[in-house]
Amino acid sequence: MLRVRDLNRALDFYTNFLGLREVRRHDLGDATLVFLTDASGHYHLELTHNHDGRDYALGTQFGHIALHVDDLDAVVVEVEARGWWFRRSNPKNTTRYIFVHDPDGYDIEILEAKAPASTTT
Amino acid sequence: MLRVRDLNRALDFYTNFLGLREVRRHDLGDATLVFLTDASGHYHLELTHNHDGRDYALGTQFGHIALHVDDLDAVVVEVEARGWWFRRSNPKNTTRYIFVHDPDGYDIEILEAKAPASTTT
Repeated sequence: MLRVRDLNRALDFYTNFLGLREVRRHDLGDATLVFLTDASGHYHLELTHNHDGRDYALGTQFGHIALHVDDLDAVVVEVEARGWWFRRSNPKNTTRYIFVHDPDGYDIEILEAKAPASTTT
Repeated sequence: MLRVRDLNRALDFYTNFLGLREVRRHDLGDATLVFLTDASGHYHLELTHNHDGRDYALGTQFGHIALHVDDLDAVVVEVEARGWWFRRSNPKNTTRYIFVHDPDGYDIEILEAKAPASTTT
């Protein structure tokens, strides 16, 4: 569960850019909870929007959310079109990825790699 | 990805208590990355242990990790046996859950509910 300041901005990022879809929404009056998943449906990412306008401290302890994509170059094209900051993986790495920030400043890693279920462990 | 201060304490919590299993470990010299998953294998929880003893600020923005179990009462028995703090869901809620803290203070929600993949959306 991630707390977000602007639900519409967050949903634009997580659905229109990252491709997740909304599967459930709870309007609690003083807060709205939105549950997202990907094509697999195997997990939920919960966004919590508190309506009282409170601010948050991101801290340094939580790291990032990582997602896998088939075509990282296509993602980079879109990130550049949107004019967002991003950081590329070291070319020496066998795994290619970029880091971007979501609208609330969370680090989001986008990897060109098979999803965890397909890895040999 | 979650940053942890004491890898062994964190692994005891995430594997022995929560039942996740280690699927990959990268020793980078100045840091150790451990990837965990559950029986489904559909996601990874990455624990990062930096070896320089740095401290972290938890902040207020990241919420929690949630996991589903079949038998919450059995989990409560174990939590009580370990003498840990926990908070129960409101009895009026249709979903039963508890919140505990991992060794680094992260909020962990344990729900008695079907996993996301089984929900009707």
